[in-house]
Amino acid sequence: MGKYIYGFDIGGTTVKIGLFSLEGVIIKKWEIRTNKREHGKHIIKDVFNSIKNHSIPLSEVIGYGFGVPGPVVNGLIVECVNLGWKNYDLFNEFSKLSGSRSIFIENDANVAALGEAWKGAAVGYNNSALITIGTGVGGGLVVNGSVIEGVHGAAGEIGHIKVIHENGLLCNCGNIGCLETVASATGIKNEFKSLMKSSSLSTRLRGMNEVSVKLIFDSAKENDQLCLAVVDKVSYYLGYACTVLSVITNPNIIVIGGGVSRAGKFFIDKIRKNFDELVFNPAKNAIIAEAKLGNDAGIYGAASLVKNG
Amino acid sequence: MGKYIYGFDIGGTTVKIGLFSLEGVIIKKWEIRTNKREHGKHIIKDVFNSIKNHSIPLSEVIGYGFGVPGPVVNGLIVECVNLGWKNYDLFNEFSKLSGSRSIFIENDANVAALGEAWKGAAVGYNNSALITIGTGVGGGLVVNGSVIEGVHGAAGEIGHIKVIHENGLLCNCGNIGCLETVASATGIKNEFKSLMKSSSLSTRLRGMNEVSVKLIFDSAKENDQLCLAVVDKVSYYLGYACTVLSVITNPNIIVIGGGVSRAGKFFIDKIRKNFDELVFNPAKNAIIAEAKLGNDAGIYGAASLVKNG
Repeated sequence: MGKYIYGFDIGGTTVKIGLFSLEGVIIKKWEIRTNKREHGKHIIKDVFNSIKNHSIPLSEVIGYGFGVPGPVVNGLIVECVNLGWKNYDLFNEFSKLSGSRSIFIENDANVAALGEAWKGAAVGYNNSALITIGTGVGGGLVVNGSVIEGVHGAAGEIGHIKVIHENGLLCNCGNIGCLETVASATGIKNEFKSLMKSSSLSTRLRGMNEVSVKLIFDSAKENDQLCLAVVDKVSYYLGYACTVLSVITNPNIIVIGGGVSRAGKFFIDKIRKNFDELVFNPAKNAIIAEAKLGNDAGIYGAASLVKNG
Repeated sequence: MGKYIYGFDIGGTTVKIGLFSLEGVIIKKWEIRTNKREHGKHIIKDVFNSIKNHSIPLSEVIGYGFGVPGPVVNGLIVECVNLGWKNYDLFNEFSKLSGSRSIFIENDANVAALGEAWKGAAVGYNNSALITIGTGVGGGLVVNGSVIEGVHGAAGEIGHIKVIHENGLLCNCGNIGCLETVASATGIKNEFKSLMKSSSLSTRLRGMNEVSVKLIFDSAKENDQLCLAVVDKVSYYLGYACTVLSVITNPNIIVIGGGVSRAGKFFIDKIRKNFDELVFNPAKNAIIAEAKLGNDAGIYGAASLVKNG
């Protein structure tokens, strides 16, 4: 009987690799570069070579979980635009290399949600949601311990809830006014620029062209009026998105992750305040919490796919 | 081995009762009045007496499913305001009367969604949603064949997605701008009155104070400009709500039910048009269809609770 699980989080720049005990303790983690040449055909071989040369004999591994950056339906990858994969048969490719058939594949945001549910902020809750706020806004929904994939792999695509019905901005998805257009790092920076032009709110950042999201949040914490207005607007839409989730899957807990969530309690409190003002009363007791696993959520969640079979 | 299932749909005015074969064929259905006196303590006894005196011996019944008008969590009724029930132990009450322990309880909108999935418009689809448009707007979500209850019984409360962020109307739930305020029968009539006051659109109904939703839709079908504007607005918000569902649980099919859905293909086509314009591209193939079971969806779904155990 094997003693280990591998969890892989395949991104456009690196593949994160985690070696776990069956109890979900991380034993070792490392990264390799994602080789996207020739439609990403080398990625899976690179992953296998990286673990093959490792100190753990593969005979002691009970299975392999993968998070991939694109929609997955019943373990089949629909498309990963960033990697050049389309209807890519990862299961078969990795099975040929490893000889294993204990291979599980899921969307990266969904595995991050599973990771937070297994070993992060949502431990002990059977019904949770993750909203990740980085370059884009992603998400994953866990109901009764399992992730909801959706029939087109689009479940949990919280960033593409339309939140602005008039004069919204164009989203990367082609639609207008998605949550991602106002709550992603890009959206936050756009909102800063737009408010700097259109308002006379005081700010110590006036005249600066390129400011980081961290600087916007740090300034808001120090009561910079314009930055506060930006953060308040972003928090409104995130609080609103949480209320939408609370009347659809009605989770115990909504976890806020991704780079932008590092703004911490200050940010979570503002999201909470908006949630409290907008929520459907029976769902008001949902918890809103900061993610705990950071960039490791994906490898944890990928490993949990194996654990849950 | 029993040969029958009973499905009950308990409403504020009547209790609908359906006797089903194990295959889900309805053998007989009837209604009794809902006796709400003394905090609804007589209802379950009345239900039992009604089936006890029936021609089928209860020894041939394998189980009993109930749809109730309020939130249910893990088979426990939180509250049914209309019936006077609060933390009411329906399982135990009915078990004492019937001697059975094969008793299943779920929210009425959720059982309606299960009914449509079992024998109605969503047959053959594992992941479906029902939006019921009547006095209020309700809903239910089926994922992998099971209904999502939510931890506070608030899952599928689609009517309480906020859809209007500015100058929305007060909803029965206490919030402002919920889908229910614009897409329920009441919301549609309010919108008609409001547009009649504020616009100069031509209408054959000008000057009429109380018009039915049916008359509004019938007039819209005959190209009445003001009624068309009302229907277009309602369809926008329903199409929008469908897009929200399509990035959260991402169903195969969204079924539109409730009295207002009798407006038929004309209405569904308008909802579809708005959905197509607003949907996240990967989820664009969702089907939007009219409900098939009408007022019987609840008893079918209640019976299906027994079938699915």
